[in-house]
Amino acid sequence: MRIAIIGATGAVGRRMVSILEERGFPLDELIPLASQRSAGTSVRFRGANVDVRELTSEALVDVDLALVSAGASVSREYLPEAAAAGTVCIDNSSAFRMDADVALSIPEVNPEALENRRSNIIAVPNCTTITAMLPIGPLHRMAGLRSLVISSYQSVSGAGWKGVVELEEQVAKLHGHEEGLAHPDFGALPAGDVFGKTIAYNVIAKIASFEETGYTGEEAKMMAEPRKILGVPDLFVAATAVRVPTTFAHAVSLYAEFDRPITPDEAREVLRGADGVELRDDPANGVYPSPIEAAGGDDALVGRIRQAEGRPNGLLLFSCADNLRKGAALNAIQIAEKVFSA
Amino acid sequence: MRIAIIGATGAVGRRMVSILEERGFPLDELIPLASQRSAGTSVRFRGANVDVRELTSEALVDVDLALVSAGASVSREYLPEAAAAGTVCIDNSSAFRMDADVALSIPEVNPEALENRRSNIIAVPNCTTITAMLPIGPLHRMAGLRSLVISSYQSVSGAGWKGVVELEEQVAKLHGHEEGLAHPDFGALPAGDVFGKTIAYNVIAKIASFEETGYTGEEAKMMAEPRKILGVPDLFVAATAVRVPTTFAHAVSLYAEFDRPITPDEAREVLRGADGVELRDDPANGVYPSPIEAAGGDDALVGRIRQAEGRPNGLLLFSCADNLRKGAALNAIQIAEKVFSA
Repeated sequence: MRIAIIGATGAVGRRMVSILEERGFPLDELIPLASQRSAGTSVRFRGANVDVRELTSEALVDVDLALVSAGASVSREYLPEAAAAGTVCIDNSSAFRMDADVALSIPEVNPEALENRRSNIIAVPNCTTITAMLPIGPLHRMAGLRSLVISSYQSVSGAGWKGVVELEEQVAKLHGHEEGLAHPDFGALPAGDVFGKTIAYNVIAKIASFEETGYTGEEAKMMAEPRKILGVPDLFVAATAVRVPTTFAHAVSLYAEFDRPITPDEAREVLRGADGVELRDDPANGVYPSPIEAAGGDDALVGRIRQAEGRPNGLLLFSCADNLRKGAALNAIQIAEKVFSA
Repeated sequence: MRIAIIGATGAVGRRMVSILEERGFPLDELIPLASQRSAGTSVRFRGANVDVRELTSEALVDVDLALVSAGASVSREYLPEAAAAGTVCIDNSSAFRMDADVALSIPEVNPEALENRRSNIIAVPNCTTITAMLPIGPLHRMAGLRSLVISSYQSVSGAGWKGVVELEEQVAKLHGHEEGLAHPDFGALPAGDVFGKTIAYNVIAKIASFEETGYTGEEAKMMAEPRKILGVPDLFVAATAVRVPTTFAHAVSLYAEFDRPITPDEAREVLRGADGVELRDDPANGVYPSPIEAAGGDDALVGRIRQAEGRPNGLLLFSCADNLRKGAALNAIQIAEKVFSA
């Protein structure tokens, strides 16, 4: 079993390596690959340093599994050839997600997509989609999802290490200001190369580029992917994607309407037994989830479950998940576990 | 014209004093009042220091106008007597907002509530409600609001100065950590007296206490107040209130459905001419609003206007407003301007 990590030095790639080790994934050879710029560095795996090599078509020959997180253009360039040669390619980018032949799977939510797959390319959904679908999937199976309104609270690491660094630099600059936060000199801050506006002490309602519809690319993914994952082509989804100054977990505020009435207690009962979900919903005792608690963990933390006033078919929820782990690296490896144990 | 500021040393009270000066509000005497703890300090007004006195019933005798921001229990204790004696009391607390006899007004949105008022107590809506209603009000008048889903991004100053200080202290502690944000030691942070959970690099989906319904007090306000302001008692509102590590402006992500179809272009046309709103919505040129841009200003900055996919009656919007100014102090003074010019 030879496993390549494409984008091994990135924020998601490094987590792929560590999660393979954590979970004792059976493999004979780990092949970390990256752009020419990162080739020659190394990644730590099972107590040894493994050299990072440059990604080329040749490097993928005789690879059984490629775990891929290097952006859509890299995926489009290398994966079709590798997949045709027999490599199972599990791709974190958006390149192939909506292709009819490509499975788009959260193993806890739609494992059937993996069982019925018709391609060696398998796509990991967008990290925000995953955070929303982990609780929505089981509720949909119970009550039939009819519509979904999502507003997100997405961490800076969704833009990679450079996003974390940009937030840190801006905070340092503001924090050095002698007047402190009471009279911050926000005007002195650069807009930021990564996020376009100041992200420290701000929220930015733009993730990826604006499309002609006025939605951003991120929002378009959050609207299209749930339809494919849940198998409801005419599902209504209205999404607003917002970057917030958090680091390693995304959160989503959800308003969902179902085909039949569903109470918060019924929803809690379903989610208590759901894979990939940890219920944190006990308002009487002050229990509800937040991104910091989700960071570094494997599950989506779900709480704030409420009945919509006057709409027995409507529920509100709040879900948080580590965007680099469950939102990307872990979900990819869980897909690999399903595919290679089948 | 004798004007009392109740809660004069708080974050909102200080802005009331400065906005009275900025706008040249006609007054003969400014009477800053506060709790015994703050009495003896002073506030700066028209180039002089004005002593802060302790709030008592006697201090309100012969006061023409009281601008009030000292919490619901203080308002309940002092305002009914002062109002009965003829003082116009404009109250930022939630104490009287839903009383049938009390006007609840955003002057740009429902000035008729002031014209028809039956009490000397007038309530300023919740700051998040104001941020949402400034754009929704004009759209409702055009197309008839049927339902509203709100998720908020609320700044720490909504909890007063102590909220700003708590964020600042946590950031300083984390930022001193030698590994920086890449490996933050969030576990070492105190939960925080003000916010209950860590607010630095986190978001907290709980503002005020949980009610029996599972909604927080803040969410209950965001659902009840729009019905009264817009005069639509059966309006459907689903609200999720979330604290984020921003400082002086709230943001809201809105999904609104109307009685008739409305396009983003129609909405922009209406909002371009709306009082209290500055349209910042030009995705082709990367123009959209953020809280930092709204902080310190008088208007709600509104953008990200999109048509709901497949629902011609549905619109998405994003609105940001300074929660201490337009969300509280400025709105109170605008009410006073209407009442005393009438």
